[in-house]
Amino acid sequence: MTERPIDVLDKAKGKRIMVKLKNGEEVTGVLRALDLHLNLWLDEAEIQKNDTKIRLGSVLVRGDTMVYASPV
Amino acid sequence: MTERPIDVLDKAKGKRIMVKLKNGEEVTGVLRALDLHLNLWLDEAEIQKNDTKIRLGSVLVRGDTMVYASPV
Amino acid sequence: MTERPIDVLDKAKGKRIMVKLKNGEEVTGVLRALDLHLNLWLDEAEIQKNDTKIRLGSVLVRGDTMVYASPV
Amino acid sequence: MTERPIDVLDKAKGKRIMVKLKNGEEVTGVLRALDLHLNLWLDEAEIQKNDTKIRLGSVLVRGDTMVYASPV
Amino acid sequence: MTERPIDVLDKAKGKRIMVKLKNGEEVTGVLRALDLHLNLWLDEAEIQKNDTKIRLGSVLVRGDTMVYASPV
Amino acid sequence: MTERPIDVLDKAKGKRIMVKLKNGEEVTGVLRALDLHLNLWLDEAEIQKNDTKIRLGSVLVRGDTMVYASPV
Amino acid sequence: MTERPIDVLDKAKGKRIMVKLKNGEEVTGVLRALDLHLNLWLDEAEIQKNDTKIRLGSVLVRGDTMVYASPV
Repeated sequence: MTERPIDVLDKAKGKRIMVKLKNGEEVTGVLRALDLHLNLWLDEAEIQKNDTKIRLGSVLVRGDTMVYASPV
Repeated sequence: MTERPIDVLDKAKGKRIMVKLKNGEEVTGVLRALDLHLNLWLDEAEIQKNDTKIRLGSVLVRGDTMVYASPV
Repeated sequence: MTERPIDVLDKAKGKRIMVKLKNGEEVTGVLRALDLHLNLWLDEAEIQKNDTKIRLGSVLVRGDTMVYASPV
Repeated sequence: MTERPIDVLDKAKGKRIMVKLKNGEEVTGVLRALDLHLNLWLDEAEIQKNDTKIRLGSVLVRGDTMVYASPV
Repeated sequence: MTERPIDVLDKAKGKRIMVKLKNGEEVTGVLRALDLHLNLWLDEAEIQKNDTKIRLGSVLVRGDTMVYASPV
Repeated sequence: MTERPIDVLDKAKGKRIMVKLKNGEEVTGVLRALDLHLNLWLDEAEIQKNDTKIRLGSVLVRGDTMVYASPV
Repeated sequence: MTERPIDVLDKAKGKRIMVKLKNGEEVTGVLRALDLHLNLWLDEAEIQKNDTKIRLGSVLVRGDTMVYASPV
């Protein structure tokens, strides 16, 4: 079966991923769910901007704010 | 049943959430309703920008202005 | 019946609301009509930007320029 | 019949309206036609940006560049 | 028959129009074709930005980059 | 048959075109293929930004990044 | 059969490509999968911004953040 780009995230469920956002922030968290709009549900999430790190717990990241996402 | 990213908010109904907006502001409030566009109805809402905090009462947050949202 | 986010505005018809716009301006006015794109018809509208306030009378606010809206 | 937000412009046909654009310019002109995308045909149009005013005659204003529009 | 906003351009076919773009540039040219996305085919086109003028010959202007367009 | 704006590019297949991008860069290359989203396949492509020129070989230019395109 | 712009990437599967992003960053990586939204799955990916280079491993690049992409 042909692989789809979204599979790189789909097989990372339960693992930690890094998401680069259009506003320059980086979110890391354990991927729990995703959909075709690339909306993401992350657990144990942390936001990094410049030198500041903020702990968020569970977070919904809106898909259209993503630049790229990568398992870490 | 497969979980969807939006479920992280759906199960936070009646609880306080934090929403990061594309214009840099943060809104917190008690989540009363949401839809598939990620439009949100928040009660007892407060807007934080830099060092300023404004009380809004009930507010409709347009979904396409959201970067991420997280139960607090 | 399940509440929708737009209901927070729908039940504010005839009352004064504040609308925060993506260009940083704030519009207040009496809500007369709204649609599913969040286009708004406001009467007795005023625009506030920084320290300037402009009276507009009736105004159509395009929905995709809204960040959030709140009864005042 | 329920009023729609666009009616505030629809009943202004043949009258002068002011349109605030996302690039910060203001256009005024006599409204001749509009559609559901909020594209506008204005006659006797003038553009105002900062202290400069330019006369355009007839102009098509693309709807997605509008922030708000108001009969003057 | 009801007039549409796009008619202001449709009847300008074969004539010179000015198009203001979202990136601040102005294009003038003889309108040869247009479609419902407001994509334009201009002949004998010139681009003006600040004090620079560039001759382009024939050009396709993407509709979603237009702010407004006006026969000159 | 009515001409469409995209025809100005369609008849430029196999010839060199210049594409102005929303990020301010200019791409030139030999047009090999295009679609209705204005996605372009250019061969022997070069990118010009300010005083820097970069050779790319074959390139896919995403249509929604185009401001205008012109045969050179 | 008529060639499509996306074919320039389709035939680069398994090879290294460079992707220019709207936020100014450049991603290079081995193309493993792509779809019609131009979402990309890259392996052995590296991000270059100004003078910084970051190794990412596998990455999903969201299609609407791409300016252009080119086999290297």
